[in-house]
Amino acid sequence: MTAKAKKEYDVIIIGGGPAGLSAGIYTSRARLNSLLIERGAVGGQIADAEMVENYAGFAEGVSGVELGRLMQQQAAKYGLNITIAEVTGLELKKDKKVVKTTKGDFTAKAVIIASGSERGKLGTPGERELTGKGVSYCATCDAPFFKEKPVAVVGGGDVAITEALHLAKFSSKVILIHRRDRLRATRILEERAQSEPKIEFLWDTVVEKIEGEDVVRQLNLRQLKTGKKSALDVAGVFIATGFKPNTGYLKGFLPLDKTGFIKTNDRMETKIPGVFAAGDIRLNSARQAITAAGDGATAAENAEEFLSQ
Amino acid sequence: MTAKAKKEYDVIIIGGGPAGLSAGIYTSRARLNSLLIERGAVGGQIADAEMVENYAGFAEGVSGVELGRLMQQQAAKYGLNITIAEVTGLELKKDKKVVKTTKGDFTAKAVIIASGSERGKLGTPGERELTGKGVSYCATCDAPFFKEKPVAVVGGGDVAITEALHLAKFSSKVILIHRRDRLRATRILEERAQSEPKIEFLWDTVVEKIEGEDVVRQLNLRQLKTGKKSALDVAGVFIATGFKPNTGYLKGFLPLDKTGFIKTNDRMETKIPGVFAAGDIRLNSARQAITAAGDGATAAENAEEFLSQ
Repeated sequence: MTAKAKKEYDVIIIGGGPAGLSAGIYTSRARLNSLLIERGAVGGQIADAEMVENYAGFAEGVSGVELGRLMQQQAAKYGLNITIAEVTGLELKKDKKVVKTTKGDFTAKAVIIASGSERGKLGTPGERELTGKGVSYCATCDAPFFKEKPVAVVGGGDVAITEALHLAKFSSKVILIHRRDRLRATRILEERAQSEPKIEFLWDTVVEKIEGEDVVRQLNLRQLKTGKKSALDVAGVFIATGFKPNTGYLKGFLPLDKTGFIKTNDRMETKIPGVFAAGDIRLNSARQAITAAGDGATAAENAEEFLSQ
Repeated sequence: MTAKAKKEYDVIIIGGGPAGLSAGIYTSRARLNSLLIERGAVGGQIADAEMVENYAGFAEGVSGVELGRLMQQQAAKYGLNITIAEVTGLELKKDKKVVKTTKGDFTAKAVIIASGSERGKLGTPGERELTGKGVSYCATCDAPFFKEKPVAVVGGGDVAITEALHLAKFSSKVILIHRRDRLRATRILEERAQSEPKIEFLWDTVVEKIEGEDVVRQLNLRQLKTGKKSALDVAGVFIATGFKPNTGYLKGFLPLDKTGFIKTNDRMETKIPGVFAAGDIRLNSARQAITAAGDGATAAENAEEFLSQ
């Protein structure tokens, strides 16, 4: 195989989380010559989840790292090529797509974009060290671990309120910590949070440090108006300051929603023929491992159909 | 709990395949009081698949029966109620939905329809006995089991041609058996099939019997114009006479596509507020276990949001 031939594929998949790996399982099994490009570690965001309990089929749960590893092994078994590189630019024409990366240019007839999103980080000491040990970015994933225990939610938008309401079904108390004196959430969600007795609000307050050794134990807080410092005992803290789609590299190449997400139809098609999007990067994605894996398979099936035309 | 209270739920899920069970895992974990209604055996169509190799996360594959069992166990763990009954009618208003069944009426605020589709059957002797043993209804699922072996496809529409083209990547020979003297498939697919040297056509021909003991061995054929009978040695036969959505009970209650499928957006919402559809029953579904499971989770997340309004 010449150096040139090695850079030409039927399908290029950008992103190695559940959406990209599931797409790769399908394209490889369809005998399409497929390349998956991942900038960091294969597995994606799911690797942050200590235990995934809601991925249908894993009745006893599975660690996020293990789930990613299994998917990668499965894709490799069917011949998916994987390379670690950062995408730096794109040319997306109907007949030919060029994906420019830190390892050179790759071309394909179809592209599946599955580079995910990430939760906004606080950047607070203790946050990274205790992620998966009480620091969480997903109440849907992790709320059942905090039954009858006090937890905090940091944020003031729809995501934060939705997370707090979800947590109130499990936890003994939910303290919502917001840096402003009012919420940014839609009214109806705010009303619901206000009428939920388990939810308490701490306004004009920021988290300065997350304390704990093996697990989260306490938050060190500062009231912004008075400057007063305090400590709050919690078993968990949910960071809910929003999602950031990993679409920076797509700007100018593919139409994005005003929040940076990619709009698709239910076949995972974008506005450009032969360009598909799957997983958390999509507007309206439920941002779950199982929905991402489903999206990836749908994108792959429709990419195969696109290539057969 | 009174008899009356037992019949009122937050969410009713119709159908116990991967879409319905995944939805049930999510609604139950969200502490929504949820009822799943299945008319036959929980697990759905997937139970027909001897080995599922393309469900992301099961690197070594999993039998369809086992996958269904695992999902059911997982949903039950989080409190999903399951009842075996046939749905006989519906009342779908924005505020209240009534699901009428052979076990009485159940009410809910939201309904997720996930009753699937089924492949058209030939009704030929041997078909049922050898299903999963060489008789298949899904080339995407099963083609890799027939590497370098001769197989037949029965049908003449887009599905049949797509299956034949997919199988040509694996099998030594693909014999397409059609009861008419020309295809119903779209031109471009027909052209591709005609130019694929591995695909041969048998026109005006029907399968009278599928022979084999543990596995498919031979098809007994009849030429309709001449009446001549013949035998064809194959390792597998793919029945591709189309999909039939299980939406008979929905006619008059929910708008259906002209082929009987349900149209949704990418949030799995139908035209009726609080009524969602998931899995194979959807128009544009890729009809895979993983896409059905993803759809179910998406429907459940959006049903939870609907209920919080």
